[in-house]
Amino acid sequence: MMRQAGRYLPEYQAIRAKAGDFLSLCQNPALATEVTLQPIDRLGVDAAILFSDILVVPQAMGMSLRFEEGRGPIFPDPLRDAAAIAKLTLPDPNTDLDYVMDTIVRVKDRLAGSVPLIGFCGAPWTLAAYMIEGSGSRDFGHAKTMLYTQPDLLHHLLDQVTESLTLYLNAQVAAGAQALQIFDTWGGLLSTPAFRAFSLPYLRRLIGSLNKGDVPVILFVKGGGQWLEELADTGAGVLGLDWTIPIGAARARVGDRVALQGNMDPGVLLSNPATIQREVQDILLSYGPGSGHVMNLGHGITPTVPVANAQAFITATQELSGTFHTHAEVAR
Amino acid sequence: MMRQAGRYLPEYQAIRAKAGDFLSLCQNPALATEVTLQPIDRLGVDAAILFSDILVVPQAMGMSLRFEEGRGPIFPDPLRDAAAIAKLTLPDPNTDLDYVMDTIVRVKDRLAGSVPLIGFCGAPWTLAAYMIEGSGSRDFGHAKTMLYTQPDLLHHLLDQVTESLTLYLNAQVAAGAQALQIFDTWGGLLSTPAFRAFSLPYLRRLIGSLNKGDVPVILFVKGGGQWLEELADTGAGVLGLDWTIPIGAARARVGDRVALQGNMDPGVLLSNPATIQREVQDILLSYGPGSGHVMNLGHGITPTVPVANAQAFITATQELSGTFHTHAEVAR
Repeated sequence: MMRQAGRYLPEYQAIRAKAGDFLSLCQNPALATEVTLQPIDRLGVDAAILFSDILVVPQAMGMSLRFEEGRGPIFPDPLRDAAAIAKLTLPDPNTDLDYVMDTIVRVKDRLAGSVPLIGFCGAPWTLAAYMIEGSGSRDFGHAKTMLYTQPDLLHHLLDQVTESLTLYLNAQVAAGAQALQIFDTWGGLLSTPAFRAFSLPYLRRLIGSLNKGDVPVILFVKGGGQWLEELADTGAGVLGLDWTIPIGAARARVGDRVALQGNMDPGVLLSNPATIQREVQDILLSYGPGSGHVMNLGHGITPTVPVANAQAFITATQELSGTFHTHAEVAR
Repeated sequence: MMRQAGRYLPEYQAIRAKAGDFLSLCQNPALATEVTLQPIDRLGVDAAILFSDILVVPQAMGMSLRFEEGRGPIFPDPLRDAAAIAKLTLPDPNTDLDYVMDTIVRVKDRLAGSVPLIGFCGAPWTLAAYMIEGSGSRDFGHAKTMLYTQPDLLHHLLDQVTESLTLYLNAQVAAGAQALQIFDTWGGLLSTPAFRAFSLPYLRRLIGSLNKGDVPVILFVKGGGQWLEELADTGAGVLGLDWTIPIGAARARVGDRVALQGNMDPGVLLSNPATIQREVQDILLSYGPGSGHVMNLGHGITPTVPVANAQAFITATQELSGTFHTHAEVAR
């Protein structure tokens, strides 16, 4: 589940209270390891997801970053001109982001091969949008202004972010990450021509530059349902889907070129176990016969979800998907 | 332009300051008339859009409503159970929403046939989502909870909202509105099955129940690009598009069944006149030869847009679209 190590778990809240703010938790390998492992112990999910945040990379590139309760991430000195961008540096992941690598090593050690560990990063466009805007935003007006008035400057920034992310993901794999997910949270804010110019080429370059061996790359573009064919050509092995597109329709479009991950509306987890089971079944039915499906939510789990409902999602998936897949394989 | 009577205009700000809060301005026919007319005078747009808010209908159904500076609309007593929903009443638009009808009559009088007046309302799902949630929200968790746990109760609410909107839009037409736009701002938060169950049937019923004569209905579903074929079958004459779908691709899907409105990224208005002109031209090129296109933004104009840039959008559209269309008609 996206954001499976998160606020809906009381034991997460307890460790978070111990760590202080969100960023301190991300940067404390002992505690980040604990929260990474909590959903494995509590819910029995089939993979661990590294507890971290996509914005540690801009911080490692030299930007000041803080998280404000109720407001989210803030860059007090957002990038609004060439001079600000010129001050960015290329991070060395093993020193500037050593706490992430340390967490990966600790988690891998604790998991001892029981389930795989998924590492991740933000997409170049998504990180650049935050770095220019300085915070989350409905419109990302500053980022859009740079996109439409100084496209070359934005390309220069995207180039540096992509370079940094390449180093970062390669270091995650070297430290032991067994799958990588790239989150283009704000890709869906772009028009199609803008997505093709300012996001897609950098995704393709990032994925193509990884020394990943057989580590699968999962690419999630929120609101990117209309670009699936192009996303399937980036080199990603798996496309993450938000909940707005029926997974069967997505599969019909991309065929066997990529596996699909998703895509239950996180809002379903606010209901009850019976409803959750029915929705899981509907997704399995929509995907249809055959393998190549990783069940997940279509976006992050929200803080008010009852743990019993998160559990119902995991249990329903584990109970139903085997039958569906076995049956499907036979039917083929 | 969506939200063309708005904060980007200094003369709007002046009248807004005079009126007090946003809702007082909506409910003052003399001042609402002034701000409705401002973009006609200042920019020369080709249609007036009634200055109002989609949430005056829930208010007229009996809900308390206020607008907080920086937070937006608040219903202090959101609808969370059957008892709260049972208290709603069917409004009489000519008494409970008389200030809207009065504004329409005044605007029509002042326009004296120079340009048409567009009335509007929120879609049943979008209004219900606000009424349940109590405010804007990223996830609309309360609304989703009702959708997934008490679908019959949500259908009951949607039924009442649809009934109210039918009365409201019919009254707008009777008062003089010459086109109607329905905004499903939160339609795109729904999964496809949920959209088909909780939004689409009510849109179809609302449009089908209007005594509209030859008044065109424009249906805008934000994030609804994947449902265009179904939206084209609602009875709407025009589909409004957000900026995420290329208008040419939308046209290829719906053909001549409906006209299309849109769809420039409102973020482009933060750039400069040359960029705006190029983007207008790209949209005209994407739409291609022939009529059936209403230029617009893909969402509301934002407060920080320089007036000169809004003007550049209008001017470029008026200068370029004639040529494109004439050329196109000849080419056909």
